[in-house]
Amino acid sequence: MAVLIQLFAIMDMYKIMKIIVDTLLDDYGPKEVIKGTIKAASTRKDVHFILIGDEKLISSTIKEEKADIKQFTIVNSNQAILNTEHPVMAFKQKPNSSLALAYDLLRKDKDIDALVTPGSTGAALAGGIFKIGRIQGIHRPALMATLPTRKEGKLVRILDIGANMDCKAEYLVQFAEMASEFLKLNGIASPKIGLLNVGKEEGKGNSLTTEAYTLLKENKNINFCGNIEGDGVLKGEVDAVVCDGFAGNVFLKSLEETAYFVSDAFTHAIKKSAFTKFGALFQLKELKKVKGLFKYANQACAPLLGLKRLVVKMHGKSTAENVYAVLLETFNMIEGNLINKIEQSINK
Amino acid sequence: MAVLIQLFAIMDMYKIMKIIVDTLLDDYGPKEVIKGTIKAASTRKDVHFILIGDEKLISSTIKEEKADIKQFTIVNSNQAILNTEHPVMAFKQKPNSSLALAYDLLRKDKDIDALVTPGSTGAALAGGIFKIGRIQGIHRPALMATLPTRKEGKLVRILDIGANMDCKAEYLVQFAEMASEFLKLNGIASPKIGLLNVGKEEGKGNSLTTEAYTLLKENKNINFCGNIEGDGVLKGEVDAVVCDGFAGNVFLKSLEETAYFVSDAFTHAIKKSAFTKFGALFQLKELKKVKGLFKYANQACAPLLGLKRLVVKMHGKSTAENVYAVLLETFNMIEGNLINKIEQSINK
Repeated sequence: MAVLIQLFAIMDMYKIMKIIVDTLLDDYGPKEVIKGTIKAASTRKDVHFILIGDEKLISSTIKEEKADIKQFTIVNSNQAILNTEHPVMAFKQKPNSSLALAYDLLRKDKDIDALVTPGSTGAALAGGIFKIGRIQGIHRPALMATLPTRKEGKLVRILDIGANMDCKAEYLVQFAEMASEFLKLNGIASPKIGLLNVGKEEGKGNSLTTEAYTLLKENKNINFCGNIEGDGVLKGEVDAVVCDGFAGNVFLKSLEETAYFVSDAFTHAIKKSAFTKFGALFQLKELKKVKGLFKYANQACAPLLGLKRLVVKMHGKSTAENVYAVLLETFNMIEGNLINKIEQSINK
Repeated sequence: MAVLIQLFAIMDMYKIMKIIVDTLLDDYGPKEVIKGTIKAASTRKDVHFILIGDEKLISSTIKEEKADIKQFTIVNSNQAILNTEHPVMAFKQKPNSSLALAYDLLRKDKDIDALVTPGSTGAALAGGIFKIGRIQGIHRPALMATLPTRKEGKLVRILDIGANMDCKAEYLVQFAEMASEFLKLNGIASPKIGLLNVGKEEGKGNSLTTEAYTLLKENKNINFCGNIEGDGVLKGEVDAVVCDGFAGNVFLKSLEETAYFVSDAFTHAIKKSAFTKFGALFQLKELKKVKGLFKYANQACAPLLGLKRLVVKMHGKSTAENVYAVLLETFNMIEGNLINKIEQSINK
């Protein structure tokens, strides 16, 4: 019996999740990232976090929040790779930056399950490709974002949103397969995949999408539902939309900026005068709900799919709540063994 | 003196503008198109309209509105080319459709100044290319849309929004030149041109945009202001944005659908209960303004730039007021001699 207990203890030890959290380059400051991580740690005692960033700030925040210091390892770094830097050069010029240290750790320690960062997307991608590498058979890794839809509670994923500027049709097919595996972990048995295009009919689009359409239709691993336009995406007609990284980035930024624009216009109209503000008193609860809806994009995690290890980009404007939400999704991807599932699907 | 008066009369005769208006395939029905045209006619007695569509409906609407019948020629057609039809095939299969008749007339009568249609974009483009042809030196014609920005009263143009799926860098340069000529007619001396991209820095983007950046920078005919992303477009940082037709279409649809989505969410929140509706009573005027802002996209005309003759696509959901606004812009393009200006700029 004593032997069995010891065995369980060892098994438990092996079951502990280890996640690196890069705390630098969040627009709201590293403290929000640290606090979000502490919150996630408090709900899951079986997770160990390696927090990279300002050692003093991390220590003092852990004390402040009365968190269990044993759940954290602190790695000191006061240098971030900036969005304006050349991603590949930055790793050479800043070997002690938080992201460079994070990738070095991830590469060396096979027991680490994931790396989560709010930092430069370009650098996260470059590090992923050059320090970690792609899953065997994967042409290109893709960055996947999550969007709200008009169907209450229904989300839609879109990839690639900027990792690959010039894509080939076969990349888009792999994006569809990777998204499908991700969605299956989220309880969707046969995820619906759409191809972002300028019209619904087969044959519409540019040379990339017309070719990708044919390949997607032929692929047995995915539930391809044809072309989709902006209205279909936001109506939640599919579970994931695939596109090249240029188009995906254009789509996403147009959506984000328009949502801010329209939302600001309404807010401005409502707050225009004491008179209109008085009217708003009757709408407070409902207006808050609307604003919450469009905040989702910031909360959601953007995994970099197709790498040998799990790397998750979070939004550069993440509050502690957002960081917490991203970490919950990260737990799910680790426990669902996403990397292995993708590997199996691609090499089927 | 009598001779001089006669001479002026003849000159005036030659000054009369002639515009074909295709009345079919507007979602709100042909009557809105007819009424909008009648309104435009009433403000400009020097314009003659050739209305193509249901003869009886056009005649009865002209009578109803007590318009001057002499300002109109009616061409009967009860057949529209649908959005779902193959644009090129449709012209062969439906030679008596309103758009086929419109293009035949435009080609035959050199005195006609413009063709305005709410019909299928693909068919309008196919007709333009095959029945009218490109201006000498133009690689590809482009469809240009107009968007509101966060700067009050400031508009931004975007092209191409769907005429050319696969573009070469030199097409984008011509799009910039054509937009510049259009904007000069609108009183902007040195129109600012941006390149739609995924980042602001030079070198960002796909192979098309990196090449186009270099060519745009070198071109002396245009005031190139570098790369621009969604936020810059909506902040009104430039006067026109160039991109390939796929990216432009994706950008535009994402923007339109998000604007509807957010706007509906706010409207829904405000109308949720008698309580919230009571609050809205204090906001009516301001809320109306916000909704007006985003209706602009529907009002605006989308000229097909680069053709030998002026062809203007209006939105498939155009009210009489929208049609009227499009026709005012069309007058401006005709009087400013846009086609000649583009020809001169391209062949400079």
